[in-house]
Amino acid sequence: MYLILVYDIQTDDEDGARVARTVFKTCKAYLNHIQKSVFEGELSKVQYLELKNKLFDILRKEKDSCIIFKSRNEKWLDKEFLVEESIDKTSNFI
Amino acid sequence: MYLILVYDIQTDDEDGARVARTVFKTCKAYLNHIQKSVFEGELSKVQYLELKNKLFDILRKEKDSCIIFKSRNEKWLDKEFLVEESIDKTSNFI
Repeated sequence: MYLILVYDIQTDDEDGARVARTVFKTCKAYLNHIQKSVFEGELSKVQYLELKNKLFDILRKEKDSCIIFKSRNEKWLDKEFLVEESIDKTSNFI
Repeated sequence: MYLILVYDIQTDDEDGARVARTVFKTCKAYLNHIQKSVFEGELSKVQYLELKNKLFDILRKEKDSCIIFKSRNEKWLDKEFLVEESIDKTSNFI
């Protein structure tokens, strides 16, 4: 299945920066990074459940948010960059 | 057509905050706000082109980015909130 994952981490508190880095690295292990907190890619059901469980353990209930859009087929979705994004600018976490 | 719109505005410079507010209000006039910089909704072709042109005039080429995912039908997309988002927290721009 094809996924678009978008997250929003509250970083104005003590462990916010650490949570954001961990969420970024976890997503990057499964999906392609296309914009600051936006990932996309094709995952099997098993990989998808794995990623979800890992993110459940990191994300903080009342502070962070994460939305996943799933489509059975990438062909059913067109993607348009309104303003060109220089891709290296998006990989700011090592 | 059904749209998911995600933007990333560089706000560490002089007019970043103004651009972010203007982009937010422009998107909110056409789409539903579901997460900090994420909007979704059903638009006609004319509305879509209108929104795009307005955003073109606001977004700054080398600083900001905006990605739009289009699907001919909302049914082809499942949406999952990994962590519940208290919706009022997202409307922080008046």
